[in-house]
Amino acid sequence: MLQALTPSQGAKLISPNIYTLITCIDSKGQPNAIGASWVTRTSIDPFLMLISIAFTRYSHDEIARMGEFVIHYPNEEQAAGAWLCGVESGRNQNKIKKAGLKLVDSRIVRTPTIDDVTVAFECETKNSFITGDHTVFVGEVVAVTGNPVKNKHLYYTANSGLMSLDLTGNINKNIEKDR
Amino acid sequence: MLQALTPSQGAKLISPNIYTLITCIDSKGQPNAIGASWVTRTSIDPFLMLISIAFTRYSHDEIARMGEFVIHYPNEEQAAGAWLCGVESGRNQNKIKKAGLKLVDSRIVRTPTIDDVTVAFECETKNSFITGDHTVFVGEVVAVTGNPVKNKHLYYTANSGLMSLDLTGNINKNIEKDR
Repeated sequence: MLQALTPSQGAKLISPNIYTLITCIDSKGQPNAIGASWVTRTSIDPFLMLISIAFTRYSHDEIARMGEFVIHYPNEEQAAGAWLCGVESGRNQNKIKKAGLKLVDSRIVRTPTIDDVTVAFECETKNSFITGDHTVFVGEVVAVTGNPVKNKHLYYTANSGLMSLDLTGNINKNIEKDR
Repeated sequence: MLQALTPSQGAKLISPNIYTLITCIDSKGQPNAIGASWVTRTSIDPFLMLISIAFTRYSHDEIARMGEFVIHYPNEEQAAGAWLCGVESGRNQNKIKKAGLKLVDSRIVRTPTIDDVTVAFECETKNSFITGDHTVFVGEVVAVTGNPVKNKHLYYTANSGLMSLDLTGNINKNIEKDR
C-alpha cells in the first residue's frame, strides 16, 4: 500500500541511477570531467541528449561558455577514477589525470573524449534553460564512439556505491563504495 | 580502444534504462498511463523532475493541457502491466484496466496515482520546451508516495526486456520480455 514519503525518501528509491562523466574545457584551456546522473536522451531525430548541471559546479559555466560537451558512460574498470571525478572538484586540480583516465581527441568537438569508455556522445549545445537550481543543456549528438566489448557501465546505488550493468542486465555490485 | 559507432549502436549501449509510467487525464476525463524512460531529476530545491515525451504520443497533448502528471517507478510485480502500458496506445482503450493496475487518488494533483508502486512523484508542470521531436515537461514535485517494501523497480534492457533492481543493486533479470 502507498504511504506518504519525504522527497529524500522518494529520491533514494529511484536509484540505481545511471552514472556518466561529462567532459568540458575550462577557461584556462584545461579539460575537466564531472560525474552526472541527471542525463537522458530527449529526441530521436535529431539525436539530442540533455544534461542537468547545478549552478554551483565548477563545470557549469565552462559548459555554458564552450557550447559543447561530451557525455561518457565509463566502463566498470574505470569505476575508481569515475568516482573520484564525481566527488572532487576540478577547480584547483587536474582531476582527470588524478583519476587515471586517458583523454583522446574527439571526432568532431574540441572537448576531448575519455578513452575506452563503453560509449561517448559528442554534443554541441543547441539550447539551454534553467530548472530551479540547475541548468539543462540540450546537446545534439554529432559523433558517437565507444568500446562495445567493455559494455558493463556504471550506476550509482543509494545504498552501496557504484555497480555495473551491461545491456543484457549482467551485473557486478559494490565495485566502488562511498568513502 | 574507442571505435566510431552509429547513433543506434550508442543508444543501445547506454541501456539498461529506468522504466517509468506517467499518468495523465485525457480530454474525455479518462486516466491514461504511458511507459517512459527519458525521465530525470533536474533540481534539488525546488524539487523538480523532467520527462521527455514524443509529439506523436497520445498523452503528449493531454499532459500539456492538464499542466500536471504523475511519474511512477512500478515495482517488479507490476512488470507485465507496466510493459503493456509502454507498448500499446491509450487512444482507443483503457490501458490501465487492461494492464491490471489499480488507480488511487493522488494527494495533491487531480491525476490519479497507480497503487503500490515503489515510488510516485506528483508533478505540477512549471515549464515546458521543445527538444527536437519531443517536449520536455518540467514538473515541480508536490507530493511523494510509495511502498518502500516493494523497492525493486523496473529497468529496460536493450537485449532482454525488463529487469528489476533495488537501491542496493539486488537484481531480477528477464521478468518481462519483448514479445
